[in-house]
Amino acid sequence: MIKVVIIGAGNVASHLFNALYTADNISVIQVYNRSQKKLAYFESKTTTTTSLSKIMDADLYLISVSDDSINSLSKKLQFNNKLVAHTSGSVAMNQISTHNSPSVFYPLQTFTAGKAVDFKAIPLCLEATKKSDMLLLEIVAKSISDNVYQIDSKQRKALHIAAVFVNNFVNHLYQKGEEICTENNVSFDILKPLILETAKKVTELSPLKSQTGPAKRNDNKVIEQHLSDLNTTTRQEIYTLLTKSIQKTHGNKL
Amino acid sequence: MIKVVIIGAGNVASHLFNALYTADNISVIQVYNRSQKKLAYFESKTTTTTSLSKIMDADLYLISVSDDSINSLSKKLQFNNKLVAHTSGSVAMNQISTHNSPSVFYPLQTFTAGKAVDFKAIPLCLEATKKSDMLLLEIVAKSISDNVYQIDSKQRKALHIAAVFVNNFVNHLYQKGEEICTENNVSFDILKPLILETAKKVTELSPLKSQTGPAKRNDNKVIEQHLSDLNTTTRQEIYTLLTKSIQKTHGNKL
Repeated sequence: MIKVVIIGAGNVASHLFNALYTADNISVIQVYNRSQKKLAYFESKTTTTTSLSKIMDADLYLISVSDDSINSLSKKLQFNNKLVAHTSGSVAMNQISTHNSPSVFYPLQTFTAGKAVDFKAIPLCLEATKKSDMLLLEIVAKSISDNVYQIDSKQRKALHIAAVFVNNFVNHLYQKGEEICTENNVSFDILKPLILETAKKVTELSPLKSQTGPAKRNDNKVIEQHLSDLNTTTRQEIYTLLTKSIQKTHGNKL
Repeated sequence: MIKVVIIGAGNVASHLFNALYTADNISVIQVYNRSQKKLAYFESKTTTTTSLSKIMDADLYLISVSDDSINSLSKKLQFNNKLVAHTSGSVAMNQISTHNSPSVFYPLQTFTAGKAVDFKAIPLCLEATKKSDMLLLEIVAKSISDNVYQIDSKQRKALHIAAVFVNNFVNHLYQKGEEICTENNVSFDILKPLILETAKKVTELSPLKSQTGPAKRNDNKVIEQHLSDLNTTTRQEIYTLLTKSIQKTHGNKL
């Protein structure tokens, strides 16, 4: 049985806890958090503590706190030579204090508080300094996910930026779409099959080949009509920039 | 049995044909196209013609050609007082010549040549001038889709613009994500579960509530790091504009 302690009690920590808690060969022996309040969820399921000095002996410590706190928290850990992983997409592995053995255990997914996710499908990006550490990380990762990757800090940084494009920015475009629907008394539901199909399509066909629409077709009549119908500067700016970028990508005249 | 003639043999025409061809109460009695070559696919399944004068008598004519050709083609139709629908998102109903009865039969979906779609889930947006015309359109629409909406030309125009945001522009952001992965020797496959979950999430939770990421959190340290890591002007421009727009939406300081 591999003993894991989770340090942090936020969104990612909770989702990781739920996945590891039900894994066969893993025991989450403790959850640490600075404040007692956020530990309530875990109390009936495992040991909890608000004291760094009371963190128990384990095989793996997962630091799942805000990016800015990873470094300082890792320095405060009162044990040595243990495997300590952070779970962030944008923090380098070397931000973990070297009095322990630094590593990374990064689930590449968007987590919503209270919304269950199928962890099996979530890619876990692992990084470690020692081969034996990587082996342990892999055992833990494979016990909860079918998509386990070894990714170095530079690659993870790039992945995190790419994730901002395909998740944060994409979601914002959904929101622009919803705004336009609402203003015109059209149900956003009408767009949902298109949203799902657009996402599904690029799992089979490259985004480059999947591209359609007035920008790709260089249909300036439709583009101009859309720009004149868009009634806010922000929407017009987004429309113009992304149209220009699509035309550049597909070699059309600007 | 409702008799339908499809005018056009492109991507949307083919997908509509396949759906209507298998519907119980519909008979696609003919497909018209200017050139014989593109009719090859239909020849074993129904009558085809390249001559406007040979178009057969039907209950509904679906014009599925490029936006620019709808008006001129509708004027050339050599029959009168028949129900004629175009299938475009961005063309007004009144672009169909009034020597027939104008209407719209717009499937809101991204169609890829050769890739089968589940038509049942595709929203069909209908518009007609007469109640009896709408009734006929509805019978045909409901025979192939579970999502049938009455949408007027102004609403359809808005929907089409919204669709550009949630489909064309979203796909382009996928492509930017893939570029960044490829440049860093990371498989784009790692992003696919995130892409699917991001899309699925807004079918249950509004995009406004689904928003996450450095822009939403106002995490300027990460934003600046990302901007300095992005190595093309276009990517930096897209990152800056969408970050600014998310911050504006969520009331953060710029």
